[in-house]
Amino acid sequence: GRGITVESRDGNYTAHLGGRLQVRYTYTDKDEPGAENSSNFNIQRMRVSMRGNVYNPNLYYQWQHDFGGGGGSSLKDAVLGYKFMDELSLQAGQFKAPTSRQQLTSSGSQMFVDRSLADGFFNLGRDRGILAKGAFSDNLVEYMAGVFNGNGENRSNPENNHLWALRVDINPLGRFAMDEPSFNETKPLLNLGASIATTSLSAADRNSVNSGLLSNGVNVNNIYRMDDDGNLINFTNSNDVDVWTATLNAHFKWMGLSTAAEYYFANIDPDGASDWDADGYYLQAGYQIVPETFELALRYSAVDSTDAQALTKFDQNQFQIAAGYYYKKHRAKIQADYTIHKDDLRDNRDDNILRLQAQVIF
Amino acid sequence: GRGITVESRDGNYTAHLGGRLQVRYTYTDKDEPGAENSSNFNIQRMRVSMRGNVYNPNLYYQWQHDFGGGGGSSLKDAVLGYKFMDELSLQAGQFKAPTSRQQLTSSGSQMFVDRSLADGFFNLGRDRGILAKGAFSDNLVEYMAGVFNGNGENRSNPENNHLWALRVDINPLGRFAMDEPSFNETKPLLNLGASIATTSLSAADRNSVNSGLLSNGVNVNNIYRMDDDGNLINFTNSNDVDVWTATLNAHFKWMGLSTAAEYYFANIDPDGASDWDADGYYLQAGYQIVPETFELALRYSAVDSTDAQALTKFDQNQFQIAAGYYYKKHRAKIQADYTIHKDDLRDNRDDNILRLQAQVIF
Amino acid sequence: GRGITVESRDGNYTAHLGGRLQVRYTYTDKDEPGAENSSNFNIQRMRVSMRGNVYNPNLYYQWQHDFGGGGGSSLKDAVLGYKFMDELSLQAGQFKAPTSRQQLTSSGSQMFVDRSLADGFFNLGRDRGILAKGAFSDNLVEYMAGVFNGNGENRSNPENNHLWALRVDINPLGRFAMDEPSFNETKPLLNLGASIATTSLSAADRNSVNSGLLSNGVNVNNIYRMDDDGNLINFTNSNDVDVWTATLNAHFKWMGLSTAAEYYFANIDPDGASDWDADGYYLQAGYQIVPETFELALRYSAVDSTDAQALTKFDQNQFQIAAGYYYKKHRAKIQADYTIHKDDLRDNRDDNILRLQAQVIF
Repeated sequence: GRGITVESRDGNYTAHLGGRLQVRYTYTDKDEPGAENSSNFNIQRMRVSMRGNVYNPNLYYQWQHDFGGGGGSSLKDAVLGYKFMDELSLQAGQFKAPTSRQQLTSSGSQMFVDRSLADGFFNLGRDRGILAKGAFSDNLVEYMAGVFNGNGENRSNPENNHLWALRVDINPLGRFAMDEPSFNETKPLLNLGASIATTSLSAADRNSVNSGLLSNGVNVNNIYRMDDDGNLINFTNSNDVDVWTATLNAHFKWMGLSTAAEYYFANIDPDGASDWDADGYYLQAGYQIVPETFELALRYSAVDSTDAQALTKFDQNQFQIAAGYYYKKHRAKIQADYTIHKDDLRDNRDDNILRLQAQVIF
Repeated sequence: GRGITVESRDGNYTAHLGGRLQVRYTYTDKDEPGAENSSNFNIQRMRVSMRGNVYNPNLYYQWQHDFGGGGGSSLKDAVLGYKFMDELSLQAGQFKAPTSRQQLTSSGSQMFVDRSLADGFFNLGRDRGILAKGAFSDNLVEYMAGVFNGNGENRSNPENNHLWALRVDINPLGRFAMDEPSFNETKPLLNLGASIATTSLSAADRNSVNSGLLSNGVNVNNIYRMDDDGNLINFTNSNDVDVWTATLNAHFKWMGLSTAAEYYFANIDPDGASDWDADGYYLQAGYQIVPETFELALRYSAVDSTDAQALTKFDQNQFQIAAGYYYKKHRAKIQADYTIHKDDLRDNRDDNILRLQAQVIF
Repeated sequence: GRGITVESRDGNYTAHLGGRLQVRYTYTDKDEPGAENSSNFNIQRMRVSMRGNVYNPNLYYQWQHDFGGGGGSSLKDAVLGYKFMDELSLQAGQFKAPTSRQQLTSSGSQMFVDRSLADGFFNLGRDRGILAKGAFSDNLVEYMAGVFNGNGENRSNPENNHLWALRVDINPLGRFAMDEPSFNETKPLLNLGASIATTSLSAADRNSVNSGLLSNGVNVNNIYRMDDDGNLINFTNSNDVDVWTATLNAHFKWMGLSTAAEYYFANIDPDGASDWDADGYYLQAGYQIVPETFELALRYSAVDSTDAQALTKFDQNQFQIAAGYYYKKHRAKIQADYTIHKDDLRDNRDDNILRLQAQVIF
């Protein structure tokens, strides 16, 4: 089979070692005057993982590390959990917090070369904490609920505020896997999902956050710098920032057609300053022109934080077209996409981006 | 079995891939005015290791890397060795230098969530060098003797002074494994051990040390800053700091009861300044109330460097109580401990710490 | 066999996990007044790799990471490729660019403790890009041709200039493996090779290069600092630096004798400043006094960049003598070498260096 896998006869021990490599070429046609266009080969992801169960079919662990990506080597997943029943597993460690469906779908199972603009701004990413999860009635209803440091991937919590996050999925037509394309669904499938999360950040969290929501959508490091009058201030322990975020999605698949719509919302409320809203969404559709082999897809995504009182302002959108050649579904595939990126707050940042990516899962 | 293991029929080749994950939750009730209490989930250790022997049952290697801990990814062990006989193995690479028994006992085999305060101040940790080790008379006597860079884990030696270290263990009642709890000893076991080490540090070593002893117990970076009159000085090549350290321990186990006492001593003698002594110790006892399943334990540890001429001063102690649930001994366990930490030199640093940790060895 | 290897019966899946450990001791007798001699143990290389083919005997991947070396953990190889026929494989990712033969020969298959002085100054090292390679007429002719970021190992390309590189090997007497010693050649073997490469660097590449050629031979970071008159200047986008480099080699092996000669050349032409040449070479010979067991070897290597207009100047040479004990060829061996290093531009940098290294491949 794949990677290196061992299993004891009684199933009490299993271990799997494998990986996922994404080699990407990106050409960026920059709009900014004086900026050079860039033509870049990158090891976008070089993941190695080991997972299995020990001493019991229900006691599971997982380790996943990224040895390649843009930012160098970093721990992704470190999970220790126990499955009590289909309706309840408990796990602790570092892994993805309940958030948008696109974020929770592996970067190896996307229809485009990577996730959407909106997901990049509003995802919770990975965090350290504990999670309960389960499924009812043959996956008709699935849930995840957890408490986390609330500082993002590979970050400690310097104070005692936590992130609380919940996600519920409803699959009225049967189990809907976290996999964007429609490979071979002979009956229609529908997924309706929602997630909600809240956290409170104090001055100690500044410069210690690492997630899409906190780094981009909220930009915690930035909002600490201004008060109601827009002056630079020194926050003290009493000056917390409350953050609420939510996502909603509807996904549909049938006979090679796959459509998805997902909406992201955040409210940011610094103590002693006005609150503001930010939001974003994506709409995407793909069709397998040659079943399980060749696919075309379109996507539009936008993000907006333009309230007058917003301390983090942005207004961007992307239109994308993608083509995918699947040699062995996601296990060996080549994808290309073309992005027209518009930044409505900065006229000269309307870049055009071509990406070509080869992936192997071993 | 555990992890992924392969072995040739003749035993000339073996290879084992496995790991150890410690997920920890820590609540720190800080005494310092204005400091926020912290509530933190951490991947304390995410170790992956590969080890075995090649071309010969006696030619062994080991690689162990930590992908998780507080400080990010770092190499732990890289060992290449040959076992000539029970009485003599020679190995080179990076690994733990001969030092205290608690330090040499794996962090996965402790009775508390982690090692003691005293061990944190005085351990030699890992270093790069060569080691001879062996056992005589059915483990009645064991020894380790080595020469190392003397700069600690993952550090090169910028000059030509080395660390020389020796440890001897006596086990009058039979082999005494490096494992703190008493799981199933049907006869009493006793271990008496001592270690001694010395090194000399020159100006080039400053800011290039990484061990408990050099970073905390001696604080090499700090002592280079003052002369006899307490003035800041520039050390030259002739201004070395001589360090002597020693440990002594007595461990006893029987029928679920496990007791340990270990003493640490260091003398620090900067050339051109007065020398001083620092020391520490811990006393601990645990009992398996439900054999191989549930344990309670107590520990007291203290460290002291209060000589008038000491350039690195500290005076701290910790009282700790621990409970452990062993599902498969150390291979799958949950531990909790509560610490009352007192800092006698800084009134407002008397923290209370609650720790909860789940461990799996795979 | 070695490491951990699995293979499906049809050969469509194979996976191998293994590693290479080099533990090195180095004594450096420094000529520089006031400099301390250094005596250092190092984990020179602690490589772990996984490689194989998936879903098809010709679809191959490779991951190799260094967990030890001087500079800490870093990605070495991440390769995804397809072998269409003996004459053509295509691969993408990070790996060595076509360059000198000594650089392309694994550090684990050298006759000395490490590569030559000249190779350290002029090698292209690893880069990210795409490569075509193949062999004709039973390895009589071999070639590699690729396009790369041109910034070296683990570097993105901030602009759109690329490195183009080609290497051709001719083996008139049959296949000549990338392995320096002569273990058991019963007939004479000859290799004649040449490589050529060119890249153009703009201001954006400054401080973003990581290869022997760009960091040492050209020192891109340095040449950006001066104009024709030797004044410090700010380069703009129009101020590129064109670099041409080439290597030539002749290798011969027979009955335990192994000789090699390799020449390196570079021309560096900053826009708006005079161009200059730099070059280097090594000559080495070794003989297996006890076949497949004990070897003695000699090497002389020199590098030179002394043109009047050169912005990066150097003039160094090394004489080296080596002894090697091969327990299982390169898989388990101990090597020692002694180096007399002369720096003709800086009188007080004529160091003597003793190195001792143990290697295991598992």
